Amino acid sequence: MLNFEFYNPTHIVFGKKTETQVGDMVKQYGGRRVLLHYGGGSIKKYGLYDSIIKSLEASGVEYIELSGVKPNPRLSLVREGIRMCREQGADFILAVGGGSVIDSAKAIATGTPYGGDVWDFYQGMAEAETVLPVGVVLTIPAAGSESSTGSVITNEEGWYKRAYNSLLLRPRFAILNPELSYTLPPFQTAAGAADIMAHVMERYFTDVTHVDLTDRLCESTLRTVIKYVPIALMEPENYDARAEIMWAGTIAHNDLLATGRIGDWASHGIEHELSAVYDVAHGAGLAVVFPAWMKYVYAHNLDRFVQFAVRVFDVEYDFSDPERTALQGIERLREYFKSTGLAVTLKDLDIGDDRLEEMARKCAEDGPVGNFVKLGEKDVWEIYRLAK
Amino acid sequence: MLNFEFYNPTHIVFGKKTETQVGDMVKQYGGRRVLLHYGGGSIKKYGLYDSIIKSLEASGVEYIELSGVKPNPRLSLVREGIRMCREQGADFILAVGGGSVIDSAKAIATGTPYGGDVWDFYQGMAEAETVLPVGVVLTIPAAGSESSTGSVITNEEGWYKRAYNSLLLRPRFAILNPELSYTLPPFQTAAGAADIMAHVMERYFTDVTHVDLTDRLCESTLRTVIKYVPIALMEPENYDARAEIMWAGTIAHNDLLATGRIGDWASHGIEHELSAVYDVAHGAGLAVVFPAWMKYVYAHNLDRFVQFAVRVFDVEYDFSDPERTALQGIERLREYFKSTGLAVTLKDLDIGDDRLEEMARKCAEDGPVGNFVKLGEKDVWEIYRLAK
Repeated sequence: MLNFEFYNPTHIVFGKKTETQVGDMVKQYGGRRVLLHYGGGSIKKYGLYDSIIKSLEASGVEYIELSGVKPNPRLSLVREGIRMCREQGADFILAVGGGSVIDSAKAIATGTPYGGDVWDFYQGMAEAETVLPVGVVLTIPAAGSESSTGSVITNEEGWYKRAYNSLLLRPRFAILNPELSYTLPPFQTAAGAADIMAHVMERYFTDVTHVDLTDRLCESTLRTVIKYVPIALMEPENYDARAEIMWAGTIAHNDLLATGRIGDWASHGIEHELSAVYDVAHGAGLAVVFPAWMKYVYAHNLDRFVQFAVRVFDVEYDFSDPERTALQGIERLREYFKSTGLAVTLKDLDIGDDRLEEMARKCAEDGPVGNFVKLGEKDVWEIYRLAK
Repeated sequence: MLNFEFYNPTHIVFGKKTETQVGDMVKQYGGRRVLLHYGGGSIKKYGLYDSIIKSLEASGVEYIELSGVKPNPRLSLVREGIRMCREQGADFILAVGGGSVIDSAKAIATGTPYGGDVWDFYQGMAEAETVLPVGVVLTIPAAGSESSTGSVITNEEGWYKRAYNSLLLRPRFAILNPELSYTLPPFQTAAGAADIMAHVMERYFTDVTHVDLTDRLCESTLRTVIKYVPIALMEPENYDARAEIMWAGTIAHNDLLATGRIGDWASHGIEHELSAVYDVAHGAGLAVVFPAWMKYVYAHNLDRFVQFAVRVFDVEYDFSDPERTALQGIERLREYFKSTGLAVTLKDLDIGDDRLEEMARKCAEDGPVGNFVKLGEKDVWEIYRLAK
């Protein structure tokens, strides 16, 4: 186990009807004039918008609005949000939506008090010293951004998708009402779950030894998602299934599962290129990339993949052939993604061969990706080919 | 799953040599003049005291000292600490030790800015509005007080042992260096582990349904402790074993495992009377009380005890006789405690029959204890008798 720090002060408010507390939560964390940030019309369609406005007004919190966040949130909208916050004096960003909205809100929160251009942070050219506080009402369990340190933004000039991480970016509060995920289409439920699982697996595959407790916490989180996603797909309004998935999504990415270990994160990088070039939903891309990555690297640390197979997917340990056990685990994961309706090959995503080299080059242009196995451009290309 | 809030802003600094950061941590969290609070001579014997003083001085933090905290920390010393803080203007309490020291520090932190007597809080007659900040350097993994909301103090006038809980009591930071637990005698290692396990089990045994994720997180934490305590007992300087136990001890009691469920806590109450009357170490008392409590209540929710047996102790599920499976789980827990050198009967603790009724009466004098099964005086007495 490695030395670590763990500090996650995001105040979680979880359960039925909790979105009605949003005005009070904003006020408790110092917001007087919020930028209400969201995506498209779905929050209006299902009454969430009204409920939030009512709560803000009841608490005497002023608000301005910026909607239109798309999956793979765009830098141009972030810049617009920053302009609005500066011109209209917002002191708090309230994100209502999933990971894209939250990431966009975090970028606005980072860029508003900064003298230069917000993209500097995503290029590793600046470090935030102060940010506006962010609060969240979560509607999609997936990205874990509701209590994470990260934000991923896509720059349309060149379609670069890049991340910025800072302890300052953990939201002050996150309201998690599983009922708000009832209306998610099956695809978003499944893709979100793939994202949650990927957050755990990126941390699970490590060469750091003696991380038994966090291994088991990871396995617990994976097993929970694996159990409840099929239930949520069959019964979209099953509160308990939605609740297990939503809480798992937060725990998967609040850094508890990272304590004392080094994560890999190559698959995220490899997927980001897919999302940037083909505008694939992040979780859907991960369902294709992760099993391919696993096949490419499993021999590096066979024991870890055997443990994954046995403990996460109940593969019977083949004492005479551990490699077979490991490969069965990878196959079970693929089958599982498939059973939830996700594509598991690039072909299923209608993605051909023509830009694989370009994506591999962009993915590795700042040096090798991943920690478990360091992958150069050629390795990434091989993984895309395994995913065909 | 029930609605819940989860807010744990304790900043964890975990790993080798981390106690050398204590001065900077105190300063980061606003301490300028600390009350350094600790137990007996062990922190001086092994060099920890010197290392802390050096770090405080290097960071320009002033300090006053109050040592002498005993297991089952006493109200009289708390009152002395409060006097010292008021008279000498301490603005931060630094606890160096295990749960007793931390609980005592929390009581001092609560009582110092309060107009009345600090025991008011422990009698449920006052609610803290402000407390002095507390920081921790942990030496004994057991109580989980390093990031919990609780403090348990013993009032020598009548030997009442009572708890006070407040979100304000979570320490600002906790420094966890597993090396500091190398010198723990086997008894303290084992008793501490029993305390950790009890914190998990108090939450595990609940009638709240659909708490699958937290069930699994509980099981993960228990399995980790069960695996590593025998290793730490055989190899006291095995860093990895000490590290797994120490981190498990914090997670067991930081409230993550409580999310969405109602804990029981009867066993803690039943044990507190033992500690108060016979000055038994809390963990050692729990190793006697918990299996007895289980035997008394298991029929109330057999499934839960079967799950415990199968998932925590790998008892083979007897499809034709689940009750037998459940009982085997309880027996395995007893055997496990015994294998770590702990007493599992009152007799082994040299405790006779003569005060069982008195303890049962005191335990239930404010009404029934426990949530899983509500226990009155007679039930508590039966549990003491089962523990004979």
